[in-house]
Amino acid sequence: MPTNNKRFAARVDDIQPFRVVEVLTRAKELESLGRDIVHMEAGEPDFGTALPVIEAGIEALKNGATYYSDAKGLRELRESISLYYKSDYGVEISAERIMITPGASGALLLLAGLLVDRDDCVLMADPGYPCNRNFMRLVEGKGVLIPVTAANNFQLTAALVAEHWHKPDGVSSSAGGRTVAALVASPANPTGAVISKAELVSLFNAVEQQGGYLLVDEIYHGLDAKGKNGEKTAPSILEITDQAFVINSFSKYFGMTGWRLGWLVAPDWALPGLEKLAQNLFISMSTMAQHAALKCFTPQTRDILDQRRDEFKIRRDFLLPALRELGFIIPQEPAGGLYIYADISQLLGAFGGSFGDKFGRNSQEFCLIMLEQHGLAITPGADFGHHLSDRYVRFAFTTGMDRLALAVRRMKEIFR
Amino acid sequence: MPTNNKRFAARVDDIQPFRVVEVLTRAKELESLGRDIVHMEAGEPDFGTALPVIEAGIEALKNGATYYSDAKGLRELRESISLYYKSDYGVEISAERIMITPGASGALLLLAGLLVDRDDCVLMADPGYPCNRNFMRLVEGKGVLIPVTAANNFQLTAALVAEHWHKPDGVSSSAGGRTVAALVASPANPTGAVISKAELVSLFNAVEQQGGYLLVDEIYHGLDAKGKNGEKTAPSILEITDQAFVINSFSKYFGMTGWRLGWLVAPDWALPGLEKLAQNLFISMSTMAQHAALKCFTPQTRDILDQRRDEFKIRRDFLLPALRELGFIIPQEPAGGLYIYADISQLLGAFGGSFGDKFGRNSQEFCLIMLEQHGLAITPGADFGHHLSDRYVRFAFTTGMDRLALAVRRMKEIFR
Repeated sequence: MPTNNKRFAARVDDIQPFRVVEVLTRAKELESLGRDIVHMEAGEPDFGTALPVIEAGIEALKNGATYYSDAKGLRELRESISLYYKSDYGVEISAERIMITPGASGALLLLAGLLVDRDDCVLMADPGYPCNRNFMRLVEGKGVLIPVTAANNFQLTAALVAEHWHKPDGVSSSAGGRTVAALVASPANPTGAVISKAELVSLFNAVEQQGGYLLVDEIYHGLDAKGKNGEKTAPSILEITDQAFVINSFSKYFGMTGWRLGWLVAPDWALPGLEKLAQNLFISMSTMAQHAALKCFTPQTRDILDQRRDEFKIRRDFLLPALRELGFIIPQEPAGGLYIYADISQLLGAFGGSFGDKFGRNSQEFCLIMLEQHGLAITPGADFGHHLSDRYVRFAFTTGMDRLALAVRRMKEIFR
Repeated sequence: MPTNNKRFAARVDDIQPFRVVEVLTRAKELESLGRDIVHMEAGEPDFGTALPVIEAGIEALKNGATYYSDAKGLRELRESISLYYKSDYGVEISAERIMITPGASGALLLLAGLLVDRDDCVLMADPGYPCNRNFMRLVEGKGVLIPVTAANNFQLTAALVAEHWHKPDGVSSSAGGRTVAALVASPANPTGAVISKAELVSLFNAVEQQGGYLLVDEIYHGLDAKGKNGEKTAPSILEITDQAFVINSFSKYFGMTGWRLGWLVAPDWALPGLEKLAQNLFISMSTMAQHAALKCFTPQTRDILDQRRDEFKIRRDFLLPALRELGFIIPQEPAGGLYIYADISQLLGAFGGSFGDKFGRNSQEFCLIMLEQHGLAITPGADFGHHLSDRYVRFAFTTGMDRLALAVRRMKEIFR
């Protein structure tokens, strides 16, 4: 019997479980009972890692790449990323400004540690990636969720930054400290909304004007639905300034989820602090994973990855109209990423929809019913924030066309 | 040109670079210039990962183990660790209480996040592992360094805990909050000091009496110099209580540094909070690394690892008397781990030693001279704390006998 008074740090109560993980866990339980589940919950590409990358990982292990490596990451990998910015974005980013991290999660941890003092606020869009605010909470800062809608492209804007930026008059208050940064994601999770170059410029200027930092999550880059002339739809903040922080990842476009590798691009002046933090918090990233990642940038692998991107676009182009026909409202057509964020209020009684309480009174209940009764795993909006989250669900098109078609057939039966 | 007022979080000034990394970097620079350097700085076994583990990693990659896995870690690996506690320690630790982490670093991050509120203090020995206090600082807590000496076995004791535990009268003060935990390491870095079972009981009771938590770093377990009848010299706190937290690692005895894998054993009541934190901070650990680690526990691998442990003991048994003969004072004979912590005051003029300022006025200068002039890479005491750190250096016996013999020959010349 514990005799202590079991007390956690206060932050533990404020940090929510990652609900998508709970949906996934329950989905797998149901599968183990023999149920057929269509997985549209997890933000993980279903293709696995491309073969040339796997082979490079095997080669690295055969060559004994099992030792610690530099806390900033393998020099060659940082140089490969530098070349990638040159080839794909036409920008010169010195390898010195690139740090490899244990997933984008590691990059978020470094930035929270570097920039966020106690009570400091970081503005972020609601809905958004759920863990962002928890990294800020970890270091006793605060993620301030700003409601966004179709009216502002489901993204923070210069106007929202100006409106919500907070500068207490020199006195730190537990009721709300000063704002130090804004964090945006383009393409965004869960909406797939992309920030245009013009709007990125405005955002950067708005944040710069406040003396703060702009952090841009670009982990869904490469998975943009290409524009009319085949050009990228999602510009990088690095095309605009060398004074923003970029979070990126080998998990999504590059298909290396289980290897846990991401990267961070930072302004020059921030590098010594970041390196010091990385030495202390990580010592090193996976050495063999970094050797494998070198092969992400070969023409052979890029061809595979681009085919996969095109397949994601085909799925998106199928699922988007199909969901609308079923009665989902989709105010934001995803311009990139792996998700469709869909409003179920027209389907649900609680919001005056057509089906009474048959499918639950909110998106949590809706998702539970879809999973338990109909074998469809989707993520409730509550995972992504508070703003109208009861009305929204997220579909991930991270499963094949046959499975998505099955999901649509099942829903046609359900909503008949 | 940056137009912002470039301001880091206050913690960044308080966090020191990991000096051993700087010694290593400079040593490699000198090598690239053609110098022959004996590496006795880094805490990384020189053997690399055992072949059966590497082969299991290759097999996992061939089988496509490239996806995210559970935030708590692979079930089979947690069960293997549970069996390891049964076979090697004779204790029943449910796999439920074991969480896989990205290195012991990840375990330290989870514990800081779970237990340490702003201004909360965690007692730790000085000298000790340098990053420990920085994890506490990251979450706005504080690592309180308690000077320890040969008189207390270079470890925290029940008496030191009682003396330094701090309970402000209900008021949190930035001058020093309440103490919530004590963190000990056995075998310790840098001294190799082991805490006996009787002393572990006293320590646990002392911390429990204050209503706090005992965290025990056991990452050098398995690398203990065996006792007279071949028994382990380092007991685990898990032999005593199920209410302490244990930090462990696949890096040292298990030889998997570059894979970044550790584990945490926690009391039942702490698991939901820890899992929530791990979901948010890590999403998943390296999946292929976990599959590889399963092979750490086979008799074949254990034989290899035990031979390596015996080799470390041979090195220790060579280096310890040799250093003493050279004039180093070694108050704590290492009972485990990879290090000898040696007092250089008898060698240095600044402390009334025999050589004037010839070898520097303190251990930083001494290490610099040894590296630059004599090709010997060792770590200055300042990496491990403040207490008498100017007088101490750490030798890691993580290089072969021929190299250690060369180091001793060079030092014989130097100190002639």
